[in-house]
Amino acid sequence: MTLFTKIIDGQIPSYKIAENDRFFAFLDIFPLVEGHVLVVPKVEVDKFFDIPDAIIGELLLFAKPIAKAIEQTFDCNRCGISVVGLEVPHAHLHLVPINSADDLNFNRPKLKLSPEELKAIQQRIVAAL
Amino acid sequence: MTLFTKIIDGQIPSYKIAENDRFFAFLDIFPLVEGHVLVVPKVEVDKFFDIPDAIIGELLLFAKPIAKAIEQTFDCNRCGISVVGLEVPHAHLHLVPINSADDLNFNRPKLKLSPEELKAIQQRIVAAL
Repeated sequence: MTLFTKIIDGQIPSYKIAENDRFFAFLDIFPLVEGHVLVVPKVEVDKFFDIPDAIIGELLLFAKPIAKAIEQTFDCNRCGISVVGLEVPHAHLHLVPINSADDLNFNRPKLKLSPEELKAIQQRIVAAL
Repeated sequence: MTLFTKIIDGQIPSYKIAENDRFFAFLDIFPLVEGHVLVVPKVEVDKFFDIPDAIIGELLLFAKPIAKAIEQTFDCNRCGISVVGLEVPHAHLHLVPINSADDLNFNRPKLKLSPEELKAIQQRIVAAL
């Protein structure tokens, strides 16, 4: 069972943003910037492009309102996307509010936010959904 | 008319990978690594998440076989994705064969490939499609 499946099942707590029968979205607790959200299919697939067609075709439709909520909530030019996937073997898509390409650079130091700060960010995004 | 619409219309030449009625894929001529492909909706929309639902829902289904061809063709762990969009005001998705997160870092120097090298890369990806 992957780390993300444990989060989806509630065995590991998360700052949940949205969920339907196929996808789960929650805050990245090691964010590049404030408002960094992970979108994960509930099916356990390692590589993003191995996600079955019926599911991958719905992923951006699930992510779109979350991305719009992020764009409304944070001081950013727009919501960017990254799919890297070299650390957790469960496909996931990063939604990141960006003002420069460097905001999507995974080599830069991650923010260290307190549980209170993460909770406040979660509430702001959910309120904009 | 955006740069990408001129490419789609053939006013500006490109190393085309695939096309259907809604999308066009071609080599990024300033690639992060060899095999870096751009996927562009034919409709002119600036922000990625402003792409209409009927089109954004098909984007990953169009991109998937291209990503699989990239994964087969290049020495990589998998095909990554990036959507930044701060330079050309026409939504686009980067497909990049990656071995590390740094392969998706847009701040690193781009490769300088000759037309012959780009043509050879185009042919290898198209042959794997």
